[in-house]
Amino acid sequence: MDTGILEVEDEQELELSDRIVNALATENTDALVALLDPLPLSEALRELLALEPEDRDRVLSLVPPELAAELIEEAPHAVATDLVERLDHARAAEIIDELDSDVQADLIGELDDEDAEDILGRLDAEDAADVRRLVEYEDDTAGGLMVAEAFSFAETATVGAVLRRLASDEEDFERYRGQHPYIVDAVGRPIGVVSLRALLTAKRSDKLTEIMVEPLTVSVLTPLEVLQDLFDEHPFLGLPVVEKDGQLVGVVSRAAIDAATLERAESQSLKQHGLVEDEVRSMPTWLRSRRRLAWLAANIVLNIIAASVISAYEETLAAVIAIAVFLPMVSDMSGCSGNQAVGVTMRELSLGLVRPADAVRVWLKEVSVGAINGLALGCLVGIVAWVWKGNPWLGVVIGFALAINTIIAVSIGGVVPLALKRLGQDPAAASGPLLTTITDMAGFFLVLSLATLMMPLLAG
Amino acid sequence: MDTGILEVEDEQELELSDRIVNALATENTDALVALLDPLPLSEALRELLALEPEDRDRVLSLVPPELAAELIEEAPHAVATDLVERLDHARAAEIIDELDSDVQADLIGELDDEDAEDILGRLDAEDAADVRRLVEYEDDTAGGLMVAEAFSFAETATVGAVLRRLASDEEDFERYRGQHPYIVDAVGRPIGVVSLRALLTAKRSDKLTEIMVEPLTVSVLTPLEVLQDLFDEHPFLGLPVVEKDGQLVGVVSRAAIDAATLERAESQSLKQHGLVEDEVRSMPTWLRSRRRLAWLAANIVLNIIAASVISAYEETLAAVIAIAVFLPMVSDMSGCSGNQAVGVTMRELSLGLVRPADAVRVWLKEVSVGAINGLALGCLVGIVAWVWKGNPWLGVVIGFALAINTIIAVSIGGVVPLALKRLGQDPAAASGPLLTTITDMAGFFLVLSLATLMMPLLAG
Repeated sequence: MDTGILEVEDEQELELSDRIVNALATENTDALVALLDPLPLSEALRELLALEPEDRDRVLSLVPPELAAELIEEAPHAVATDLVERLDHARAAEIIDELDSDVQADLIGELDDEDAEDILGRLDAEDAADVRRLVEYEDDTAGGLMVAEAFSFAETATVGAVLRRLASDEEDFERYRGQHPYIVDAVGRPIGVVSLRALLTAKRSDKLTEIMVEPLTVSVLTPLEVLQDLFDEHPFLGLPVVEKDGQLVGVVSRAAIDAATLERAESQSLKQHGLVEDEVRSMPTWLRSRRRLAWLAANIVLNIIAASVISAYEETLAAVIAIAVFLPMVSDMSGCSGNQAVGVTMRELSLGLVRPADAVRVWLKEVSVGAINGLALGCLVGIVAWVWKGNPWLGVVIGFALAINTIIAVSIGGVVPLALKRLGQDPAAASGPLLTTITDMAGFFLVLSLATLMMPLLAG
Repeated sequence: MDTGILEVEDEQELELSDRIVNALATENTDALVALLDPLPLSEALRELLALEPEDRDRVLSLVPPELAAELIEEAPHAVATDLVERLDHARAAEIIDELDSDVQADLIGELDDEDAEDILGRLDAEDAADVRRLVEYEDDTAGGLMVAEAFSFAETATVGAVLRRLASDEEDFERYRGQHPYIVDAVGRPIGVVSLRALLTAKRSDKLTEIMVEPLTVSVLTPLEVLQDLFDEHPFLGLPVVEKDGQLVGVVSRAAIDAATLERAESQSLKQHGLVEDEVRSMPTWLRSRRRLAWLAANIVLNIIAASVISAYEETLAAVIAIAVFLPMVSDMSGCSGNQAVGVTMRELSLGLVRPADAVRVWLKEVSVGAINGLALGCLVGIVAWVWKGNPWLGVVIGFALAINTIIAVSIGGVVPLALKRLGQDPAAASGPLLTTITDMAGFFLVLSLATLMMPLLAG
């Protein structure tokens, strides 16, 4: 028992994670695969990430490259990069070889140039060339989202040629899933596409050019939003992508667009809290701390600016100390109201229902919601302040300040993301802190300046 | 010119929205379609929603039902329901007839029973029966996400039968996009599926049972998370869905799963701000106010609880008024730190990387991040307080309180969503307010109780 491995007869009663550790300790690859392979991918990935970093490396080195590739593809982007970086290059190349070219390019693009070149050198020369080409394109464009492999045929090909290719080449067919046969001319420009229906109902001897229709193509530079619109409007599963010279260079699939859209939505949600990239708890603590601190440090500066408003009114506060009780409440409530408006604008931006040019319309729409909610919240909190501290004038100051500040927060909140977008900033990361600072400052100022004006009534 | 319509020679210079209003004013359906149809769907929808409600109704009544259906399908759920509710039932039925059965069921399920029945009565009897069946299933299960139409064939059918169906029935083929032929036995249970490759390379006279493989099926009750895992692991574009008795009742597509996943991610992001359902600015102001107020009112109660901590220390505050300047800063900074941890847990929950049972592991991981960031932020803000107010002990109080409160906020923040989930609550809506209240209370208490202890040094 000094092997550190629990006895085999206990195996059935052990937690899955302990059984994985046991299989690792004995380098029992079969047992490891038998434990991980039947799990849904998300669960297998959870088990992998719950291990110590060194154990993760060993799992990825022991299991078949197909399974390792599936796990890496399932992982969030930053985690996948981290997992690959830690492997030796020969193994990394084996695993990367199993992935689609768009995923290969995403991973390779994140590695150090030296590592990337060494790993690429171990891939099939054609695959490596594809990846080198793909990493040059921007994320969230057709070029960055496409796979390099297109199911293409020459002008002279027949239906029989398509069927022969399908029958002979199982592995390639998997790569082309969702693609229809594209017909390219002598210089590689797509001139036609054959529908599945046409293919199924044609004769083997028919030339593809007889049954093809004109293809809808997109440029490598086409942005994600436009691709979303195209896939919304057409039932296609893939769209051929062309370079400036009109050459077919890849195919972007509906599934890739859906995945990129989801990723964008989730990363926006994280950015609101200053989480700049995918963070999962399997990352090293110092890295997670540092990433979060950058945004928090910027927040300190904004907080100091807001606090300086309070500092300017210390005399008023000293005279009516009860006000200090309500300062955080007014700023917090207005912040929440304003962030609701930010949330709606962010959502409308992602749906394409609003543009920066609509700022005035949005502002007018939000002023009315802000006025109703400001009135409601102001009355409620005003009454609370009055009853709690026994001074009706305190209720008036707090209630009035909250009402006005809610209108400010809601109307500005709706517009802040549009303004940031127009200025070329990322609305997801900056809207929240910016709005909070404005509403904190305005809230503190309203409460304290009103209180200063009404001092004789309050201090009575 | 008293028609209220601008002159035609200006037409080219008018904004698109004005040209739409003009086309409406003259009931010029052709002009309306010519304006809306070439736009990407998201832009056409934006133009539609920018109109007054009555004008939206008229657009949807005038344009061909196919275009109206596309616009309604593009709209967020709550907006789509609102648009349909306002139409007369004959028109609503015409438009709904153009949609896939899963979208039909989503819409009909949101209507009043009476309206729903009347509209269903105007649909084809078979379609109506499908919709009645589909509305019974829960959202985010295979039953709620599937279409009722399956591309199915009897055991006796040949490859030729599939080709004939494809050749004869263009409209139906569109509905089946992404589906492979399913073979069902005499009582309607799926017993096989034919791959595209097998279909393309088989002879017309081959029986489907000779080339079929065993199908992977899911139950109508299968939840979205499991469906995500299945589509991650398999290249299928659709999965046949069976009832308890094993009968084939529909097909759930990869696209439907992707759309539902995106919708869930976006609604979680909105819920964080207390926006319970899709809100867009085309909704009536009072409805938007009311929806937002419900969550804000609950927030008032939490704020009062936190403020009562300050109220208990009014004497300390009166003695060292500078503390009031830093109270909102400490609570806000800790809240931000804590919400980062909430964000990471929410993300890991949606990726399936963490379960409620992992709470202790998460807490331990977050304590270390909290400790590092607490130390860093505490030092920074402590020095700011010292320099600003010229009292080193004030710096000690504020810095120490912030450091401790950051550790509390970060470690609790990581666990709060897991605890809420275990209690059957929705972590997206409740985590933020709950965490903020805890960190406000703890922050106020730490600053004020430390200040009380160190009063002789502070007031000096």
